[in-house]
Amino acid sequence: MHFADRLVEAVERSGSSLCVGLDPDPALMPRGVEVVEFCRGIVDAVAGLAAAVKPQAAFFEALGPDGWAALAEVCAYAREAGLLVIADGKRGDIGSTATAYAAAFAPIADAVTVNAYLGRDSLEPFLARDGLGVFCLVKTSNPGSGDLQDVALADGTLLWQHVAALVREWGDDLVGESGLSRLGAVVGATYPREVAHARELMPRSVFLLPGVGAQGGRPEELRAAFAPGPAGALVSASRSVIYAYRERGGDWRQAAAEEAARLAGEVRAVAVA
Amino acid sequence: MHFADRLVEAVERSGSSLCVGLDPDPALMPRGVEVVEFCRGIVDAVAGLAAAVKPQAAFFEALGPDGWAALAEVCAYAREAGLLVIADGKRGDIGSTATAYAAAFAPIADAVTVNAYLGRDSLEPFLARDGLGVFCLVKTSNPGSGDLQDVALADGTLLWQHVAALVREWGDDLVGESGLSRLGAVVGATYPREVAHARELMPRSVFLLPGVGAQGGRPEELRAAFAPGPAGALVSASRSVIYAYRERGGDWRQAAAEEAARLAGEVRAVAVA
Repeated sequence: MHFADRLVEAVERSGSSLCVGLDPDPALMPRGVEVVEFCRGIVDAVAGLAAAVKPQAAFFEALGPDGWAALAEVCAYAREAGLLVIADGKRGDIGSTATAYAAAFAPIADAVTVNAYLGRDSLEPFLARDGLGVFCLVKTSNPGSGDLQDVALADGTLLWQHVAALVREWGDDLVGESGLSRLGAVVGATYPREVAHARELMPRSVFLLPGVGAQGGRPEELRAAFAPGPAGALVSASRSVIYAYRERGGDWRQAAAEEAARLAGEVRAVAVA
Repeated sequence: MHFADRLVEAVERSGSSLCVGLDPDPALMPRGVEVVEFCRGIVDAVAGLAAAVKPQAAFFEALGPDGWAALAEVCAYAREAGLLVIADGKRGDIGSTATAYAAAFAPIADAVTVNAYLGRDSLEPFLARDGLGVFCLVKTSNPGSGDLQDVALADGTLLWQHVAALVREWGDDLVGESGLSRLGAVVGATYPREVAHARELMPRSVFLLPGVGAQGGRPEELRAAFAPGPAGALVSASRSVIYAYRERGGDWRQAAAEEAARLAGEVRAVAVA
């Protein structure tokens, strides 16, 4: 089933346009809790409060040989809990290699993040996977994102706007029954002006908006992203939710649930307005 | 020890500026041969004929839960055989995530490939690793590389040339005793004119030149890359070497050794000229 259509369903079911990022960092996790146990606990805590989770491949790879098994187990557990899974790997490579990445991620995730620096043919193997959601990096949330993405082009636009135009063009054939394309865009919540502009450039793409919480992005500035409706965007927070116990104290699962509920409420206020 | 200095040593020891890409694809490998066994066989075949191997992370991730252990085992085996290991993952992410990727790759490889679309801060955790080689994607070998990389900028240059200028700037502090920086550049051997121009833009970067063989690049057109000497560039071939038995027949290890020797000779003719 088409990713955007599944997302519409998941947002309706949960009443939430929140995505919780799973960045399991042993330095920040509660002592004595293993990575898989931690991620399962977070999934239990946020199921019903979020539409999706976004496991970050890097933190699983950093575990060494057992990392990929842990990632697959966490993804399966989240899907059983009714959450969509966006595997955040930001992969991008030549066709034959991208085919191997797609083979690695498609069986365990509902959507993936990709980097389009290598061009259209590097995305093709992901787009060719039936129903798979693909979020292309457009304007990222980090401070240095402007080094390349804000470079001025000869036509008067910026590089990220050129990428946005390509995402629109490439995604036009991938629109589901909901009217949304399964080729989406990553746009940093830390750049609200760009989010609004990106929505004009890509009217039918689902936006994945990371950078809320630890990175400083605020849901109330992201209203424009939801122009197509509550499933038009997913506001994604990682550290501020999964490590909420470090601020709030108490049980780490309870703290994550409370912070997810609080944030989901804030997001809902702009998503359904 | 500084990557570029180790590379100078490896090129001198082997008399070769060849890098063999390890893309273990079960559909192309000899029947009944497992991935680790296959890669070990290729390492045995090309040790002494190449300076480095370049395992492609995607093909190991596509193996599922056992993939990362296989990758680590193959990397260790190659290093024991005296080959430098360039882990080809083309990673690029925000700082906290890039730190996790660096933690995953630095223990098993001598160098990594990275994607700079997210900017300087996304490369920082890799550059901060003592001695680690970092190859930044500049102009890639695939047909679609122009979609972003050849976009015309307001200053009259192309995007890949802007990235090349950043690589030069960022790599200036990372020059070893050899005079070469450990911030290198990936430049597709399929675009020889761009290779020559890239050498002007990045005089001290080691070039990783993929795309020879299956993708159509030819060593004799890559002379400019070797302006700094035989360790100034690594010509990288994957499928044409490791699956040479499919063209040449006979034992797959023997075929790979013969093709590696032939190609290393061609490369040597331009590298030491």
